[in-house]
Amino acid sequence: MSTVQPAGTRTELTREMVQRALDAKTKPPGSLGRLESLALQLALLQRTTAPVVDRARVVVFGADHGVAAEGVSAYPAAVTAEMMRNFARGGAAVTVLARANGADVEVVDVGVDADLAGLDGIVHAKVRRGTRNLAAEPAMTHAELEAALLVGRGAARRAAQDGVRALGLGEMGIGNTTAAAALLSATTGDSPSATVGRGTGVSDATLEHKRAVVDRALRRHAAVLHDPAARFAALGGLELAAIAGAALEAARLGIAVIVDGFISTVAVLAAMYLDPHAPLRDAIVCAHRSAERGHGLALRALGAEPLLDLDMRLGEGSGAACAIPLVRSAARILTDMATFESAGVSGRVE
Amino acid sequence: MSTVQPAGTRTELTREMVQRALDAKTKPPGSLGRLESLALQLALLQRTTAPVVDRARVVVFGADHGVAAEGVSAYPAAVTAEMMRNFARGGAAVTVLARANGADVEVVDVGVDADLAGLDGIVHAKVRRGTRNLAAEPAMTHAELEAALLVGRGAARRAAQDGVRALGLGEMGIGNTTAAAALLSATTGDSPSATVGRGTGVSDATLEHKRAVVDRALRRHAAVLHDPAARFAALGGLELAAIAGAALEAARLGIAVIVDGFISTVAVLAAMYLDPHAPLRDAIVCAHRSAERGHGLALRALGAEPLLDLDMRLGEGSGAACAIPLVRSAARILTDMATFESAGVSGRVE
Repeated sequence: MSTVQPAGTRTELTREMVQRALDAKTKPPGSLGRLESLALQLALLQRTTAPVVDRARVVVFGADHGVAAEGVSAYPAAVTAEMMRNFARGGAAVTVLARANGADVEVVDVGVDADLAGLDGIVHAKVRRGTRNLAAEPAMTHAELEAALLVGRGAARRAAQDGVRALGLGEMGIGNTTAAAALLSATTGDSPSATVGRGTGVSDATLEHKRAVVDRALRRHAAVLHDPAARFAALGGLELAAIAGAALEAARLGIAVIVDGFISTVAVLAAMYLDPHAPLRDAIVCAHRSAERGHGLALRALGAEPLLDLDMRLGEGSGAACAIPLVRSAARILTDMATFESAGVSGRVE
Repeated sequence: MSTVQPAGTRTELTREMVQRALDAKTKPPGSLGRLESLALQLALLQRTTAPVVDRARVVVFGADHGVAAEGVSAYPAAVTAEMMRNFARGGAAVTVLARANGADVEVVDVGVDADLAGLDGIVHAKVRRGTRNLAAEPAMTHAELEAALLVGRGAARRAAQDGVRALGLGEMGIGNTTAAAALLSATTGDSPSATVGRGTGVSDATLEHKRAVVDRALRRHAAVLHDPAARFAALGGLELAAIAGAALEAARLGIAVIVDGFISTVAVLAAMYLDPHAPLRDAIVCAHRSAERGHGLALRALGAEPLLDLDMRLGEGSGAACAIPLVRSAARILTDMATFESAGVSGRVE
């Protein structure tokens, strides 16, 4: 029986409708595994049984960290600015991997402690030249946190305008595994021994020192750690805030959020606490399981199972870049595969 | 001190030379994990610190199996030929996934039990219309095995002529998880309870029956199972033999062999026993861990750790297609990334 649909109403796309479309394709039901659940997610996110992820992008937010002065990294803080130049010229891992995987790259200065005004090919949106030292005082004011969140939201809106349907979120910032570990500990209650890892590859002695720095920071800011925005401002970083803002806005716009490694996962987890009603869970795809200690905890807190497990621990968005072909592939199952009926292929006999 | 190198000698590329090239790139040493070991493998395979995998291909060998008459599949044998038409038209999973991932597809009829002579867009190299029923008699004669191996070698040579540097090996053949399980049991000594799985998704009852069929086959051919070629002929399939031949020839030509799932892994394992001196181990990259029972055993016997683990179990070469971007990405690290020196990025401070 056909019914006339009142003008202005839309048929709601249900999970069952997408599942039926997947099961009609020429393959045993479920035999494409994770690619099928990803296809289902993309269809519901884009509200169509024919989702498209042809245009993809990785955004790299760069910022410095006052806590780097505590000697928590294997590399000097100057590397943040040096790597921004390397991104702009296309010589860094994330730019190479994005190009190899058919994604473009946007590089955003949200808080590098250097004058990059003359650097072409990046977005200039510096909130301030690096955060304050989180072990001694709040890393950011609330206004700075808000400004960095807005920088991230802006990147997501540019992506939407450019037709991007999958947005990888990466970062560069010497000292940022320290900030992320502190924010993760504050969020989940796990001790620094579980959240602090070697980052760029520090020695045993520096790892111990890094844990002590995070422990000190958690004690210093103990009074505000119950509040999601206050703990983000106290312990986070400008690039973490930008990632959080980009994730929230991309999810709102129906863009798949490709979460990179440790930093990116902690930032997205923090975004969920900042705005518990945002449709973030429906939009996020965790790209890979990083070798950085603490990433497993962050993924568990997010309730996410990553696509790749390649022992990577570089950050930048390098893992997100590698996952994009899988996201694109998942969408193509729905748009490009023939059905048993259209291809004239026999069905099951049992 | 410089020395004059005698004409005609070549500097041998060593593992250390490639490792130095990787460690000079702008990233903490080893931070790209499996991508770096893959880059090392590709460099040694291509004998250059600048390996290229831009051109990639998945070959799908199609063939039927006499053992399908035993009722070991959830789908009728006619599906093999129907899927060959689906491959030719580009509507099947492997063709869709290969296109999404920048690889082309070659479809080869090495033994489909149907007249496909009029089908355009595939390679016609039928050895015979399907194998004999391996549970009752040897599936192939030695001459048929040799002919199918040659079909595979031909596909690898065409790939080399076309500039392909990574060759995925896939298959289509109703009944072929039964043949592969039998061949795997004969190779490793594992019982059918460990090697026989649900294939396209058979019921519990059919799974039990399938195990009994493999058990019967192993007892029938017990006298020849010690001989790699004889057990391949007795229990294998024409598409498995073609995969084995393609793998051996591709390895000889310095082409990376992207091994797909259960069938493909068993065929490559069998190829190693056929020709223990072939440089196969240096060339193979296992694409993914299939959800098919027995694949873990086959991977262990091959001594390989797959790149992806996405709960896929379709075959065709669908997993190989999904892994190609990772192989391409790995090569690009060596060819495209800047070095600390060229990019002016500071090195470690500890």
